[in-house]
Amino acid sequence: MFYTDGKLQYPVRVEKANPLFARALQQAIGGIEGEIRVAMQYFFQACGARGDPKFRDLLMNTAAEELGHIEMLATAVALNLEGAPLSLKEQVANDPISGAVLGGMNLKNLLSAGLSAMPVDSDGVPFDMSHIYASGNIAADMVANVAAESTGRALAVRLYEMTDDGMKDMLSYLIARDTMHQNQWLAAIEELGGGQGVFPIPNSFPQDQEQQEFSYAFLGFQQDGSDPVAGRWSQGTSIDGKGSFKAGSIMPMGEKPQLAPAKPRGGAQKEQM
Amino acid sequence: MFYTDGKLQYPVRVEKANPLFARALQQAIGGIEGEIRVAMQYFFQACGARGDPKFRDLLMNTAAEELGHIEMLATAVALNLEGAPLSLKEQVANDPISGAVLGGMNLKNLLSAGLSAMPVDSDGVPFDMSHIYASGNIAADMVANVAAESTGRALAVRLYEMTDDGMKDMLSYLIARDTMHQNQWLAAIEELGGGQGVFPIPNSFPQDQEQQEFSYAFLGFQQDGSDPVAGRWSQGTSIDGKGSFKAGSIMPMGEKPQLAPAKPRGGAQKEQM
Amino acid sequence: MFYTDGKLQYPVRVEKANPLFARALQQAIGGIEGEIRVAMQYFFQACGARGDPKFRDLLMNTAAEELGHIEMLATAVALNLEGAPLSLKEQVANDPISGAVLGGMNLKNLLSAGLSAMPVDSDGVPFDMSHIYASGNIAADMVANVAAESTGRALAVRLYEMTDDGMKDMLSYLIARDTMHQNQWLAAIEELGGGQGVFPIPNSFPQDQEQQEFSYAFLGFQQDGSDPVAGRWSQGTSIDGKGSFKAGSIMPMGEKPQLAPAKPRGGAQKEQM
Amino acid sequence: MFYTDGKLQYPVRVEKANPLFARALQQAIGGIEGEIRVAMQYFFQACGARGDPKFRDLLMNTAAEELGHIEMLATAVALNLEGAPLSLKEQVANDPISGAVLGGMNLKNLLSAGLSAMPVDSDGVPFDMSHIYASGNIAADMVANVAAESTGRALAVRLYEMTDDGMKDMLSYLIARDTMHQNQWLAAIEELGGGQGVFPIPNSFPQDQEQQEFSYAFLGFQQDGSDPVAGRWSQGTSIDGKGSFKAGSIMPMGEKPQLAPAKPRGGAQKEQM
Amino acid sequence: MFYTDGKLQYPVRVEKANPLFARALQQAIGGIEGEIRVAMQYFFQACGARGDPKFRDLLMNTAAEELGHIEMLATAVALNLEGAPLSLKEQVANDPISGAVLGGMNLKNLLSAGLSAMPVDSDGVPFDMSHIYASGNIAADMVANVAAESTGRALAVRLYEMTDDGMKDMLSYLIARDTMHQNQWLAAIEELGGGQGVFPIPNSFPQDQEQQEFSYAFLGFQQDGSDPVAGRWSQGTSIDGKGSFKAGSIMPMGEKPQLAPAKPRGGAQKEQM
Amino acid sequence: MFYTDGKLQYPVRVEKANPLFARALQQAIGGIEGEIRVAMQYFFQACGARGDPKFRDLLMNTAAEELGHIEMLATAVALNLEGAPLSLKEQVANDPISGAVLGGMNLKNLLSAGLSAMPVDSDGVPFDMSHIYASGNIAADMVANVAAESTGRALAVRLYEMTDDGMKDMLSYLIARDTMHQNQWLAAIEELGGGQGVFPIPNSFPQDQEQQEFSYAFLGFQQDGSDPVAGRWSQGTSIDGKGSFKAGSIMPMGEKPQLAPAKPRGGAQKEQM
Repeated sequence: MFYTDGKLQYPVRVEKANPLFARALQQAIGGIEGEIRVAMQYFFQACGARGDPKFRDLLMNTAAEELGHIEMLATAVALNLEGAPLSLKEQVANDPISGAVLGGMNLKNLLSAGLSAMPVDSDGVPFDMSHIYASGNIAADMVANVAAESTGRALAVRLYEMTDDGMKDMLSYLIARDTMHQNQWLAAIEELGGGQGVFPIPNSFPQDQEQQEFSYAFLGFQQDGSDPVAGRWSQGTSIDGKGSFKAGSIMPMGEKPQLAPAKPRGGAQKEQM
Repeated sequence: MFYTDGKLQYPVRVEKANPLFARALQQAIGGIEGEIRVAMQYFFQACGARGDPKFRDLLMNTAAEELGHIEMLATAVALNLEGAPLSLKEQVANDPISGAVLGGMNLKNLLSAGLSAMPVDSDGVPFDMSHIYASGNIAADMVANVAAESTGRALAVRLYEMTDDGMKDMLSYLIARDTMHQNQWLAAIEELGGGQGVFPIPNSFPQDQEQQEFSYAFLGFQQDGSDPVAGRWSQGTSIDGKGSFKAGSIMPMGEKPQLAPAKPRGGAQKEQM
Repeated sequence: MFYTDGKLQYPVRVEKANPLFARALQQAIGGIEGEIRVAMQYFFQACGARGDPKFRDLLMNTAAEELGHIEMLATAVALNLEGAPLSLKEQVANDPISGAVLGGMNLKNLLSAGLSAMPVDSDGVPFDMSHIYASGNIAADMVANVAAESTGRALAVRLYEMTDDGMKDMLSYLIARDTMHQNQWLAAIEELGGGQGVFPIPNSFPQDQEQQEFSYAFLGFQQDGSDPVAGRWSQGTSIDGKGSFKAGSIMPMGEKPQLAPAKPRGGAQKEQM
Repeated sequence: MFYTDGKLQYPVRVEKANPLFARALQQAIGGIEGEIRVAMQYFFQACGARGDPKFRDLLMNTAAEELGHIEMLATAVALNLEGAPLSLKEQVANDPISGAVLGGMNLKNLLSAGLSAMPVDSDGVPFDMSHIYASGNIAADMVANVAAESTGRALAVRLYEMTDDGMKDMLSYLIARDTMHQNQWLAAIEELGGGQGVFPIPNSFPQDQEQQEFSYAFLGFQQDGSDPVAGRWSQGTSIDGKGSFKAGSIMPMGEKPQLAPAKPRGGAQKEQM
Repeated sequence: MFYTDGKLQYPVRVEKANPLFARALQQAIGGIEGEIRVAMQYFFQACGARGDPKFRDLLMNTAAEELGHIEMLATAVALNLEGAPLSLKEQVANDPISGAVLGGMNLKNLLSAGLSAMPVDSDGVPFDMSHIYASGNIAADMVANVAAESTGRALAVRLYEMTDDGMKDMLSYLIARDTMHQNQWLAAIEELGGGQGVFPIPNSFPQDQEQQEFSYAFLGFQQDGSDPVAGRWSQGTSIDGKGSFKAGSIMPMGEKPQLAPAKPRGGAQKEQM
Repeated sequence: MFYTDGKLQYPVRVEKANPLFARALQQAIGGIEGEIRVAMQYFFQACGARGDPKFRDLLMNTAAEELGHIEMLATAVALNLEGAPLSLKEQVANDPISGAVLGGMNLKNLLSAGLSAMPVDSDGVPFDMSHIYASGNIAADMVANVAAESTGRALAVRLYEMTDDGMKDMLSYLIARDTMHQNQWLAAIEELGGGQGVFPIPNSFPQDQEQQEFSYAFLGFQQDGSDPVAGRWSQGTSIDGKGSFKAGSIMPMGEKPQLAPAKPRGGAQKEQM
């Protein structure tokens, strides 16, 4: 269950409203690496967490924090949009600046939301909840969370570099929180056994039932028959500690597939039957 | 550039065509953790890879392999669909089995694809390319790839458990390849410096510009004022080796936000102005 | 800013786990009239609320409550899924029940989420945040909220009728909350001036700038030339109190449109130029 | 069944073609508050209308009118696009205006549609038919229609303010029709019994089966224990006339949820079992 | 502009309501090859038609007819849904039939639409207007229309084979109309010059500006160096009459691409710079 | 199964990096008429091809070629993005050019992909795999392929006209390949019997089971009762050679539909029962 006091987790200050930066900030709200994604991802992972309840608590608490980040960013977007013109002023040709501002901003923020934030990305594409990765496997979830916070911090850094406004202060806070969250989910992986304990995910599948000849083989294609690109992935003990890497050319073990002819009354051409 | 010889990477054998299992297999084609996702994700990461070209080669070769996995699974779906009835035979009530088969399968596989595979998931939802994570940050990409292969292997294991058919053989091969691919991307992370070298991602951002007071602090909420759930994330050196974990209560540092009144001719109610 | 204590707003009891009902409940989570929609809609309306701050408070508090409803429903889904089989057991024909259960449930709940809830509707379609109506016009938002709670309560009633389980208790609570929320947003409309005060929305546009001849005219088409279907909408004072209804035949005031020929090098056929 | 004469309901005049305004107009075609939405919403509500057939007639007639509005707007978009350049002319830096025009317009209108309108919004996002609210409950449908026409009129007003072209004339007509349609659906609610007759929707559910203790209680959270924000929603007779508003603090009646351990062969980590 | 008389173009008779067939029929409404698609495709092509106005008339008239087909199918869906149970009746195990019916139908038709049709496909996926192909090139549009009517007729034939109900009568009418519409758009191509006149589309691009060496060459890959699969496409005059087919092995003319290093403050890893 | 050598099919040269043209090129990658679409469409058609295996070979080989086209275009996008600024430089007003560049480009290419290509269209909308038309009917598939290559070539021509860069060279190659692919699929139709052999699609449905009275009748609406617009479609032998065109007024053969009253406990208003 959730509570709110309507206050911001961290102050949001905009010195010079910039509708184009408002559009950029939308990526941090409704982009696939944005705050709606992590808030809802941790929320659904928490709701489905089976096993030690501490992971549910960890996830749900962080979900609550991320909801507060959406609130901060939505406030920042609304404040930046206060600089937007409402009209085209006759012709773009006579007034290039206002045309460029309207042209460069996300027009839905004005037309559809009346100068407010929306759950869309920087191109106005709505966030789609299929990006909520909650697999029922706690280790896979933790890796997905590290991934989300990695792309999230890359985005926050790019926004930080884009602006010279007071917005830098808010972003330096969000970058710090992303640092923590990357570490937090890595710490959870450590609690679950670390690299050699959790991989390959899921660790509950008996590996003698997989085709082990191919479990640690890097396969690639070279027209001259030489081995594919070498690296840590082609030699040495595997990272999960359960095999040894090797490398080889990829080649077919199967034949060209043969499907049955089309059924007589199934809407195919008669030549296919 | 790509080549094909039309053969299958591994044999695909269906003993008893089962349209419901065809629907389940669709998740491995068009689900968010399926093969289209990894094939296209590695492809786009390769196309945008800046820096050491070996990562481009590694990614593009694995993309090619995953395309072959889609081909295997699409063949498996088509073969399983050959058991589907084409008609409802009067009434469901009189013939519960054919009703259950048609009811349980993805009807589009019949109506729209004529008993073939489609780029959709097990509920018939088309794959959406926003799931292609290619961030321009090679380390973030590698973590995203470990995540993709972790949920992918969990899915393959669930499919393996669901069937008693010859399909188990093909799936045991795909499970092995997922083992390799998890290890392969982890190996790439090792080449990039390992945990303490790559995190926090991006490692190019100077950490003295983030609000470091919050960079390693786990924040949660307890109504009785006690600390939030303890774990590896609340004490000890951080996983990236650059700080020490601490824990505390989450609390607002900002106030309730204040937006300006609505603009006079901006489509708001006059009470908002 | 948000807090959570991890507890449920109302007890969730499942007596007999039913995976098909789990699928039905998914509509109340990720359907367009479900709880993610209202939680996020009130959240974004709050973030963009300009004018009297009490509406921001009202909206944000109710957003927090709705988050708790998602949590309740996600718990209910996970508990109902505990009755799902993991395998097809040879052939559907030999075991119609397990086939029907797997066929009737949302397979992603098993394959992709490991028997947990997902942010999808009852057909497995992910929720799409374009359904968050937050217009920057507080009255339009309130009407959208009444609409959301009306379809939401219709859905809850249908779920209540579908089950005979302890689930009825949880649903009777949610139905009551929907009753309140319908009334609450209607009360907000009353605070904003009631029907004659708020309509036509937006009330800030000077009506002498609209083509008033058509502002209160019901237009329809009858092949015999008679008036279209009569009702309250075709006579009497308009509901907003600012005009009188009349009725008439719809007919074109414009001509067939004439576009310029295609530009010479714009990718059209040469016959279009 | 539908007929067309190819003429426009109201004249469409563009004095100075403006591709950026074409992009803005796209919101009124393919935005969630646009004309495709209302046309198709009334159409599907009509097709599913059970009960008094006059509502089917009312809805289908208005659907036909809204189709004509799409036609008007699509014509307006095509005419405004006739001002678009087809080439970048060397460099944006040397020719800021043509760059700004191409940069500010929806590029798909040129690249994909050859300077014609598309069923997309002002950011080029295609309309998605999940926005067609047709609930099978006639009162819920009418409220949804008032909501659609309220956001629709807010949009039309914003477009009116944005332009100084002859487009203002067409928009003043559409604004008037939105005034009528808001009133028309409110009139339909009056025919269905008015506020006290239709609410809570659905009015067919016996209220003694809902948890009536919570049916008229506004719940919010204040850290200091005081009541949440007061207003018409916290006291007095409820708007539906069937209860009395009260207010209180939101608090959990349930416990932390407990899910069963993960099933042995279900793809979870072994630590979860 | 559009008119309606509320009547059906052709009678719709359901003898035995079948909710599973209702789900199948949904594909003909909201599937990518369904009636919403063709209605809206012809509508938008008409709105953007430049050149001889007879094509606008042809397209808009057929759009109107297709709207009537949606109406017929929506009526058929609603009538078929009248056979759906509203409750699960205790346990699926005790009542396999009602469970199979609810499990096999599109649950949203019941939960979200109250036993009415929706603009979704047979798996409950909403129609997405990006499928409206209207290219600004009249010949490309006509080919797209032939494609739409070809998949549409295949779908109608499959539905015809699936049912034994009076529904066969309605479907035999729709199949006939699809026959006409395929021929109608082929006739339009003939008016535009026929195969040798319209191809390659667009015919307005001067072919001496394309790399003509590759304009009629079929390229494929054989590991043994032999030519790829032979057919009409590898020899003889090309279908557009403007070249001669030849065949050859596909091979790279470019090198491995080289991107610049990542920019210093662009969110990449420092190893990429 | 697929192989890659990491080289480009044709050289990709960018002389003057232009982020706005990068955005335009995205349409050729992730637009509905772009290269992902054709690559995946031919791939899935191949996987489901029943009948003569030469069509599978033809399709799979061309799928491989199209994958190489995505690679070329993704390289071109990345190279063009190298001209993008990373920051807003204080205010748009002071630096209109950098503002216009950032405003005109797809911001996700910078924020989310670090100056790389993405599987999105020119407005940043992700490609959605529902556009993969693979019907199980080989003739319908071939027509869909001609349609795809027709819109694809129109797009390539528009891109060619938009740029003055070395990009013209790459585009002239892609235009030539589109010429070939249009002809190639037309050649496949010829192999399948040509117009009179393949139409109406599917040619396996016995036409005496369709309502033949309407199979070759063009229906339209004229208010004055005259025939609808005349053309090749209203007279002469039909294109499929199996009938004669005629024309007539469209008119209803059915009545207004009558649905049953709403069920008592189905969530409708009581007035509907």
